[in-house]
Amino acid sequence: MSDQSPGDARFSLSRLLIGRPLETKALAHQHLSRPIGLAVFASDALSSTAYATEEILIILALAGTGAGILQLSVPIALAIALLIIVVTISYRQTVHAYPNGGGAFIVARDNFGKLPAAIAASALLSDYILTVAVSISAGVAQITSAFPELLPYRVGIAVGIIAIMTVINMRGVRESGVIFSIPTYFFLGMIFLTLIIGSVRYFTGTLPDVTGVEPVHSGVQALTLFLILRAFSSGCTALTGIEAISDGITAFKEPRSKNAASTLAWMASILIVMFLGVTLLSRAVHAMPSETETVISQIARTVHGPGNPLYLLTLAGTTLILIMAANTAYADFPRLAAMAANDGFLPRQLTWRGSRLVFSWGILILASLAALLVVVFRARTTSLIPLYAVGVFLGFTISQAGMVKHMRQIGKLRPGETLQGHEGAQEYDPHWRAKILVSAFGAVLTGVVMIIFAVTKFTSGAWFVLVLIPALVFLFFRVYRHYQGVRAALSLSGVTPDLRARPMQTLILIDDVHAETARLVSFAKSLGHPWRAVHVAVNPDKAERLQQRWQERIGEGELLIIPSPYRHLAAPIREYIVRLLEENPDSYVHVLLGHLVMDSYWEQALHQNSAYIFNIALTGLPRVVVTQVPYQIYTGNILLPKFLRANGEAASPGPGLAQRIDGVTESEK
Amino acid sequence: MSDQSPGDARFSLSRLLIGRPLETKALAHQHLSRPIGLAVFASDALSSTAYATEEILIILALAGTGAGILQLSVPIALAIALLIIVVTISYRQTVHAYPNGGGAFIVARDNFGKLPAAIAASALLSDYILTVAVSISAGVAQITSAFPELLPYRVGIAVGIIAIMTVINMRGVRESGVIFSIPTYFFLGMIFLTLIIGSVRYFTGTLPDVTGVEPVHSGVQALTLFLILRAFSSGCTALTGIEAISDGITAFKEPRSKNAASTLAWMASILIVMFLGVTLLSRAVHAMPSETETVISQIARTVHGPGNPLYLLTLAGTTLILIMAANTAYADFPRLAAMAANDGFLPRQLTWRGSRLVFSWGILILASLAALLVVVFRARTTSLIPLYAVGVFLGFTISQAGMVKHMRQIGKLRPGETLQGHEGAQEYDPHWRAKILVSAFGAVLTGVVMIIFAVTKFTSGAWFVLVLIPALVFLFFRVYRHYQGVRAALSLSGVTPDLRARPMQTLILIDDVHAETARLVSFAKSLGHPWRAVHVAVNPDKAERLQQRWQERIGEGELLIIPSPYRHLAAPIREYIVRLLEENPDSYVHVLLGHLVMDSYWEQALHQNSAYIFNIALTGLPRVVVTQVPYQIYTGNILLPKFLRANGEAASPGPGLAQRIDGVTESEK
Repeated sequence: MSDQSPGDARFSLSRLLIGRPLETKALAHQHLSRPIGLAVFASDALSSTAYATEEILIILALAGTGAGILQLSVPIALAIALLIIVVTISYRQTVHAYPNGGGAFIVARDNFGKLPAAIAASALLSDYILTVAVSISAGVAQITSAFPELLPYRVGIAVGIIAIMTVINMRGVRESGVIFSIPTYFFLGMIFLTLIIGSVRYFTGTLPDVTGVEPVHSGVQALTLFLILRAFSSGCTALTGIEAISDGITAFKEPRSKNAASTLAWMASILIVMFLGVTLLSRAVHAMPSETETVISQIARTVHGPGNPLYLLTLAGTTLILIMAANTAYADFPRLAAMAANDGFLPRQLTWRGSRLVFSWGILILASLAALLVVVFRARTTSLIPLYAVGVFLGFTISQAGMVKHMRQIGKLRPGETLQGHEGAQEYDPHWRAKILVSAFGAVLTGVVMIIFAVTKFTSGAWFVLVLIPALVFLFFRVYRHYQGVRAALSLSGVTPDLRARPMQTLILIDDVHAETARLVSFAKSLGHPWRAVHVAVNPDKAERLQQRWQERIGEGELLIIPSPYRHLAAPIREYIVRLLEENPDSYVHVLLGHLVMDSYWEQALHQNSAYIFNIALTGLPRVVVTQVPYQIYTGNILLPKFLRANGEAASPGPGLAQRIDGVTESEK
Repeated sequence: MSDQSPGDARFSLSRLLIGRPLETKALAHQHLSRPIGLAVFASDALSSTAYATEEILIILALAGTGAGILQLSVPIALAIALLIIVVTISYRQTVHAYPNGGGAFIVARDNFGKLPAAIAASALLSDYILTVAVSISAGVAQITSAFPELLPYRVGIAVGIIAIMTVINMRGVRESGVIFSIPTYFFLGMIFLTLIIGSVRYFTGTLPDVTGVEPVHSGVQALTLFLILRAFSSGCTALTGIEAISDGITAFKEPRSKNAASTLAWMASILIVMFLGVTLLSRAVHAMPSETETVISQIARTVHGPGNPLYLLTLAGTTLILIMAANTAYADFPRLAAMAANDGFLPRQLTWRGSRLVFSWGILILASLAALLVVVFRARTTSLIPLYAVGVFLGFTISQAGMVKHMRQIGKLRPGETLQGHEGAQEYDPHWRAKILVSAFGAVLTGVVMIIFAVTKFTSGAWFVLVLIPALVFLFFRVYRHYQGVRAALSLSGVTPDLRARPMQTLILIDDVHAETARLVSFAKSLGHPWRAVHVAVNPDKAERLQQRWQERIGEGELLIIPSPYRHLAAPIREYIVRLLEENPDSYVHVLLGHLVMDSYWEQALHQNSAYIFNIALTGLPRVVVTQVPYQIYTGNILLPKFLRANGEAASPGPGLAQRIDGVTESEK
């Protein structure tokens, strides 16, 4: 078989960027060990340590940058660490209950049905877009911390990184496991090294305060409970990405659930240590939230000294992990979108796997929306944070509530009985009461946190997400209803299809008399039905000359001239055809149009392509079928032998076609 | 006749914005008196007084803002005034020699042929785009001078004004004459009032210096001849728009040439008085070029006092005339583009007049490119000025050189003889020697000024124009050669067209078996040629079910399954069809595709429209014709009676169609 895309030479750029097509059977499960699985799934969760502390400090600084205020970051971080522990324990249950993948969408659909599933999907899809925008913005902030002269170009750099990631993901990330583990472990190594050196210097009294940082704003607000809760909300972005493992259980080695659950526990532990460590160290060096330098950069610069290569390596590791975190959304968003599309909630095109087995449309939509967010918010992490994490916590809440219902059903089973038609675990579990308690506690806790988010960050941007998610859910159901309607309209069950042949009239629309016209007449005659040529006289003088040339050059058939004083091309034809339909209530009207085919897009653009206008104007009419009869002209680089052009056959077969005719393909040579 | 666009309801937004279509015969010449003609054609030229003085000062300020340096603006302005006089005298000759319109493109084409004409066209087209960008940016600068709080929004305001002007021009500016004269004369009145009051206050010693202006930069450069010439170049933007009258001679009352020439002289005189007046007054009040307040605003504020309504009225007049100036480019650019397209240098679409008799494509291209410039240059007039006026002066030079050649030919005529095949004057002129002298002097002078531009403004942006113009000329000739090639390929002269009927094979491409499939089978049978259904088996399981349903529901004809392990839709079909073409070297292969027609664009977007993929893949093949057989489904708001849907007839006739069938149209009701 050919390994080329249709259109051959034209598609070479995409081929170069995207790579050669992969066969369907190449689609198979990966089998990751725990350390590799940790590297693949943890980047999203761990990377949030790069900004979570900073976002807490930025909100606290609204009340002033005195040490007494900024030190509140430590109890806030402890509260968030407790939340991480609760969610992790709860999600370990999900991993065991849904060994084939237990994302919020699946758990909601399995236990609650369409509406909660649609809500979970829209919440998570919005949040994946924000994951890309936030992670890339935070990554670029590390770069500009090390190289402040790049600060004016941060939007451009961020969009550039998104573009590169999009190309890489359109190729498909099959080699993911090993390559992914390098930046993850590099990041872990650098951060732990920084934490250890920092602690040693702190306890030996050699750790200086950070210097030369311009604070982001001077505090004028009162230190209210509201402000503290708002700082807590911003810090809760540390929890994003915890759900990643429950989505990707099938990628683990057997015993899948056990390996996944243990990886989840490891990930949460590392996350808590890093997050608390960064927060404590930021207090130790008296880091200040700033427009120009990230807190991570301030810590690393103070711990290692600005000229030390360890400083740059720490920032490089942080940038890399943030880019990897964005990359997880490139896997999650298209997969979830495809699942929702498969259920009829989103356009069917999202279920297509492209030539490299990736969901191309999903990747492109994610990349465009994330780039839009980056441009609108000028790649400022702090501006994006209020939009972020609402969706994730809504997902947490729905998923854990679903687990409560699931465990109740499990608890009702008698021994030996199984739960029918469910994707989750189907056998009786003696610990079901304890598990319900954990899931219910998790659900209530994340639900309350979500409400805190919505209230404290409402005016700074969360309102948008609170409008967006219901709007998306509404859209999902509009799409769903549409597909249902089409299915009903197309159904043949209980209907005897009308397969009979009908009479047919052929019309040729012409603009001039030349070689293309001759091809149209030849095709009309080959069809073998009564035919007639029609010209819309936008220019009356031209119409007269046309009539004359028709007689001279074609000399058979009838040419009808329809006047058009308003220079419309389509309306007069439409009226004429409607009259024909009236007069022949059982006939098809077959309209033939010429279509000059050029050998490049730019040449094609130089032609009027009025065919499209006619097509749009006539598709609404029943029993009218429009055919564009192509006529190939190559005027550009490809020089044709004259005899081919002269007899109206025209076309060079196009590159690659000759090989096909011989049955030989490029890949076999 | 119907006065609606095809597609009816869908087109209503454009109808609302653009207005109802106009009949072709509504296209007629206007006949302007001299005062109205002055108002229509002078806005571009006169409006440049709003920024020319300021741009001189900005360059001079590079060497310092001391009075000794900035006062150099007066001799520079005098030199520019002399240049205006020379160009005006020279262009009065052009107006007499080309009574049907004597723009640089026409004069160049008439006397030198294609290449110089293409150069003139590309120079002028680029400059028209800059006219819009510069005038709108300068207009917004007046607004933000009066209301500094709007300064951060200047890009948005400028783009908004361009959008509004685009809509107005898409409607067509038929009422131009009278409406245009109001802002022009209002502006003239306000500027002359300011000049007179300013002079009186100056000579009575009551005119204060301007206060509270932050200069744009503190001078660090030396006051070299180069800098002075650069200031002169920037000031020469005062000459833009002088050529407008020579382009629009046909709009004047008879005797056209005489009226146009006299209007040109008036315009130049007013321009010189205003330009020198503004320059002298700017010296009198010691105006400083500034980022935040225009020189005009500084003058008016100082002369009238900041609270005085005359101050705001002067700025309002200036803003209005700048917008009117941009508007002249909305007339000139599309007209010149249409002329060039008519000669085959630009895509033919540019010669179309839309429903309101305007060249819609030209307007849209101008607006998009001008908006792009405004966004890229952040609506800063000073950043745009280095790009500006190079094209205009190139036009001046080519046009006057063309006049030299024209006059030499006129001089060679014997009495009574006429110049054949020329658009310009064709009879002997006794003053031809004097006229050659004037044109040659003007050509040399503007040519030298153009070189001064290119050198002094090269690094600050003129290089771009010097690359752009040759690039455009190259493009023009590529387009020209393409149209010539197509014409040759389509020509039937000396060729006997092949009109014979050929055998035909019909293929139906199917994805599923439902009501649409039944419609395809009915149409294939109606065509009456041998037919066969084909399915590309992207999913092998589905293919098997399909084969079974075909037997059950259609039960006739043959269904061929083609495997596709790479999930390509088009490539396997293409290979199969190539084989068919091989086996039947004289046949047409007619491929039928289903096409579900929805009643809204968003519903249409939910369907895969794989037809487009096939169309693109197959248009390169000779003797292959693809037909999309439409099948109308209305699942949305329009509820169909069930019996219509069930028999495969489906379509509601669509809004407006019923009336048409009765022969009654909306406009007649």
